[in-house]
Amino acid sequence: MNSTNLIVLKDRERDTFLKGGRLESLQALLEPCLLVDAETCSKKEWAELLAESNPEIIVGGWGMHPLPEDTMSALAPALRYLCYLPGSVRHLVSREQIDAGLLVTNWGNSISRTISECALLLTLSCMRRLTYWSHQMHDEGGWKDSSTVTLSLFERRVGLHGFGAIAKELVPLLRPFTSRISAYTEGMPDEVYQEFGVRKANSLQELFSQHDVVIELEALTPDRHQIIGEDLLRSIPEGGAFINVARGALVDEEALLRVVKSTELQVGLDVFAAEPLAADHPLRGCRNVTLLPHLSGPTTDRRCDAGDRALENLKRYRSGEALIAPITSEVYDRST
Amino acid sequence: MNSTNLIVLKDRERDTFLKGGRLESLQALLEPCLLVDAETCSKKEWAELLAESNPEIIVGGWGMHPLPEDTMSALAPALRYLCYLPGSVRHLVSREQIDAGLLVTNWGNSISRTISECALLLTLSCMRRLTYWSHQMHDEGGWKDSSTVTLSLFERRVGLHGFGAIAKELVPLLRPFTSRISAYTEGMPDEVYQEFGVRKANSLQELFSQHDVVIELEALTPDRHQIIGEDLLRSIPEGGAFINVARGALVDEEALLRVVKSTELQVGLDVFAAEPLAADHPLRGCRNVTLLPHLSGPTTDRRCDAGDRALENLKRYRSGEALIAPITSEVYDRST
Repeated sequence: MNSTNLIVLKDRERDTFLKGGRLESLQALLEPCLLVDAETCSKKEWAELLAESNPEIIVGGWGMHPLPEDTMSALAPALRYLCYLPGSVRHLVSREQIDAGLLVTNWGNSISRTISECALLLTLSCMRRLTYWSHQMHDEGGWKDSSTVTLSLFERRVGLHGFGAIAKELVPLLRPFTSRISAYTEGMPDEVYQEFGVRKANSLQELFSQHDVVIELEALTPDRHQIIGEDLLRSIPEGGAFINVARGALVDEEALLRVVKSTELQVGLDVFAAEPLAADHPLRGCRNVTLLPHLSGPTTDRRCDAGDRALENLKRYRSGEALIAPITSEVYDRST
Repeated sequence: MNSTNLIVLKDRERDTFLKGGRLESLQALLEPCLLVDAETCSKKEWAELLAESNPEIIVGGWGMHPLPEDTMSALAPALRYLCYLPGSVRHLVSREQIDAGLLVTNWGNSISRTISECALLLTLSCMRRLTYWSHQMHDEGGWKDSSTVTLSLFERRVGLHGFGAIAKELVPLLRPFTSRISAYTEGMPDEVYQEFGVRKANSLQELFSQHDVVIELEALTPDRHQIIGEDLLRSIPEGGAFINVARGALVDEEALLRVVKSTELQVGLDVFAAEPLAADHPLRGCRNVTLLPHLSGPTTDRRCDAGDRALENLKRYRSGEALIAPITSEVYDRST
């Protein structure tokens, strides 16, 4: 039976992830292949397309329908590799399909540097009280006076909770400002801290109470649900800041709100316990909080980094090499 | 006649510029000296104090009264050095006093790195549309949708107008994001660009039209009044940003406003043609403009860098060495 590979994307995904000749490179790698407009492909047509094409490889984007449960057993027995351009695949692929041998990759850590950039922006915004000033300057006709206080990131003690790909991209962005960078995460060998020139904090308590800026970068696991509570938040030294670009559920958001309302802790949030953030959420309007709507990474212009990652993985697949960061059953279970 | 040196500061200046033992170091260097509360010293008392103390050295802050014209000729003939902790001295000292041999120093480039930090903040804010999102998130109950566009500083072409102390501090902050940094300023030797790994732009036109982010860092001189006009601003490529942390008068603000209102150019401003910015100024409310009230440098916590600069200069003065960056007649004439 013939096999035709599929590229299933919305126009805008094609034009961003695969800009600058990347689409042509992709098509050459997938030959024979069919470019499918995800916007006009119904769920029924999707099942028919899988049966007709019997693809070995599918490249997909946000507009792709889930793989029907019987994809590999009946619809498209040739399927071996789902190369998903964006991030979360839990709604597209079942654990059973991965267990059955389907290779799956996503943008992985190719987006980490844009998230680290967002963490730096939120940090600098907190130090300068940019959200307060933005409101004052735009909506209140304000100007500084002799009591105005602003802070700098230079020479500050920065504590990173988590030391994965984003933290490793963030350290070089922080380094020109300060050499006083610590990190805390469980079970990481001392050599990794040393390699990045980062001090190892001995506990979460030490990370929060001994650093002026604490940046949340940890992976969300069941035992880390709301691990950041009121005591930790209140222990950040005066003039300090708390940034979260990881997952909202790492933080007890009710406690965070109490701290925000009762202290001058500066907070920068790109993520929330429930997203989208409710229109009447009490964090809105707190001028010591910089808020972004979960857009840390990747930025639109850097979706091409995810495209490059996909191209690299497809080259590896074609030449029988191991893929970069495949979503194994274990990774699948840990993912959110 | 006896001579007693004077330190004339407000409490808050003393506690920020001279925190952490710096006041004691200063007093030791100035012995015999008198610490004067600038807040309670009237203009009349100031003249009397000068006559009584006949200081060789005055260390002053924002609260200090101007030096009367006859200070050196009559009131305080011993006066040789005004070590001013903040920036502009034009309201305190006349050119004639400098011509007559008075040594004057200020915070000089000790504050440059905090200004460069502010330039980076404004740049990152523009790329992520932080001002738009701040308004949306805080005041409009907003959230991202599928049409949301954000940009990154990674791989961007950054053009610096001016290559003085702030630019030299900014380059290391930009470097982790991009190697594509150019600068334009008149009359700088090619070796300086090379030393900092920065490309030399051949004209202001090239700087604006060939770079995604243009950062205004140039010194204001009479021939640079409103040198940045509508054509230059409109020539910045789509998706680009214009940042000004130098002086508002470098830019034709009416033209800037027209561009801001009619394009999606992202703009970050810490400085304005007239300051404080009028409460009803039409730049207020433009959500593609990030506005700060001229607080780029130094931040409150880094005033101590200016204190350190003063201490260093006083040590040099005491040991007969050349001062760092004295305000000569030429510097005085160029200053704003």
